[in-house]
Amino acid sequence: MRFTKMHGLGNDFVIVEDFDLGLTNYAELAMGLCNRNFGIGADGLALLQPSEQAAFRVRIFNPDGSEAELCGNLLRCAGKYLYEKGHTGETVIPVEMYDKIKVLRLAVTDGVVQSVEVDMGEPILESDLVPVAGKRRQAVNEEVTASGEKFVMTAVSMGNPHCVIFVDETAAVPLETWGPALEAHPDFPKKTNVEFVEVRSRDEAAFRVWERGAGATLACGSGACAVLVAGVLSDKLNRKATLHLPGGSLEIEWRDDNHVYMTGPAAEVFRGELVTDEQFKNKYLRKGRA
Amino acid sequence: MRFTKMHGLGNDFVIVEDFDLGLTNYAELAMGLCNRNFGIGADGLALLQPSEQAAFRVRIFNPDGSEAELCGNLLRCAGKYLYEKGHTGETVIPVEMYDKIKVLRLAVTDGVVQSVEVDMGEPILESDLVPVAGKRRQAVNEEVTASGEKFVMTAVSMGNPHCVIFVDETAAVPLETWGPALEAHPDFPKKTNVEFVEVRSRDEAAFRVWERGAGATLACGSGACAVLVAGVLSDKLNRKATLHLPGGSLEIEWRDDNHVYMTGPAAEVFRGELVTDEQFKNKYLRKGRA
Repeated sequence: MRFTKMHGLGNDFVIVEDFDLGLTNYAELAMGLCNRNFGIGADGLALLQPSEQAAFRVRIFNPDGSEAELCGNLLRCAGKYLYEKGHTGETVIPVEMYDKIKVLRLAVTDGVVQSVEVDMGEPILESDLVPVAGKRRQAVNEEVTASGEKFVMTAVSMGNPHCVIFVDETAAVPLETWGPALEAHPDFPKKTNVEFVEVRSRDEAAFRVWERGAGATLACGSGACAVLVAGVLSDKLNRKATLHLPGGSLEIEWRDDNHVYMTGPAAEVFRGELVTDEQFKNKYLRKGRA
Repeated sequence: MRFTKMHGLGNDFVIVEDFDLGLTNYAELAMGLCNRNFGIGADGLALLQPSEQAAFRVRIFNPDGSEAELCGNLLRCAGKYLYEKGHTGETVIPVEMYDKIKVLRLAVTDGVVQSVEVDMGEPILESDLVPVAGKRRQAVNEEVTASGEKFVMTAVSMGNPHCVIFVDETAAVPLETWGPALEAHPDFPKKTNVEFVEVRSRDEAAFRVWERGAGATLACGSGACAVLVAGVLSDKLNRKATLHLPGGSLEIEWRDDNHVYMTGPAAEVFRGELVTDEQFKNKYLRKGRA
């Protein structure tokens, strides 16, 4: 079975063309292939499939076998892949992911995709929809206490909840202590992602992220969107800014249509062919093909 | 640049044929390729090269760029690779690794290497050579205190130091606490690997390993050899036994020639081709070839 390994800011994926491969048992397949010692190793298994509602369908399965609803870093990789491998000649590509249509816009030079813009949708600020506890309509610059510390946070959902906290210096943040304490804070009934942000100017900030269920990661696209929205609401950032993460940088813009747009790179690392046996083919390939 | 990903009990390697590739800057190359998010991802980069003293030379570079002196799990992978890819028709293969010649013996069925035996050399028991502190000639069933606990340990070197401790149940061992405390115990002036062993019969034991500089790992070939030797010296194991590690099982035998022989499996997971650019070729390929 052929595959391609790509990453977006270090968030890495095994990408498999499942147009007529007849793959099946996705969850178990993802658990095996994402294993970094016994499998290929990745943060997720991505399947490119035909779509009835968009040009392509992109599905992403986590190392635990669950399907993710949204992954901005993967969408950038998918855009680069679909164009550079010749699956489309378009630079505006509507893609079906989970229950939504996401539009990818490619910046192409000499046939090479330099960056991909992803429409990440509208931010959700209503407290009961984020969800975050409390009576006020929006949680902007609210005090919250966790791990014995007092924080000022802004709660933003990009389809998943984020708790954005502005700090003087991200390097001084004990992420492994504060992250889990805020992730599980009772004010966030569905738990939350946590971002610690250091503003450098109204157009630039750096942040470290603690992802719900995953811990410290190199990059989180929805987190970058939440950071920009919180920065605008707190009057710390302009509606367009460069955000630096441990894995690299993203341009985020919150436009007048109320959608947040994320632009950033994607990289192909290697192409591979998995060693498969009859047992593998019988289990994962409906058509028994590799 | 073409490569193959293999593992021995979950200890995983990027294997590159460097017979006429002209690879260079190994340390930096290993650091990049072993990175699991931005590179291929592995516990080590292994290079197969010509040898003047043996049939082949195998070099192994750690993710930090340093060269390892001995890696039994890799040697099994190398044996399988060299035979199955047609580089040799022999089933007894002398291989140069670092400063030693290691002999690999393959068990082959229908052209497939089922297991590989590696001569891991003679155990070193003299206290000042392990090295371990104290006046006695060998440290067998000695008391040592670490992390507030009293342990009974046997010190064995297989070229690298091991502190072997027999316990009732490996599952009950707080490896993340006891491991580092013993690794850095002042009795081991060059630090030590640590093995917690549960004997099931005179022919079978299970153990968990804390590797010096690496922490908890799935498998450690030299550790398995040290466990058998300590088991024989403590009259708990026969000179041939099956040892179970988290990543799988090994057969270890301490023969009359005083050498310890390790037999176990190796697996090929996938073949790949790295995406390289001119910068990569100029930096890592002396001949500018991929």
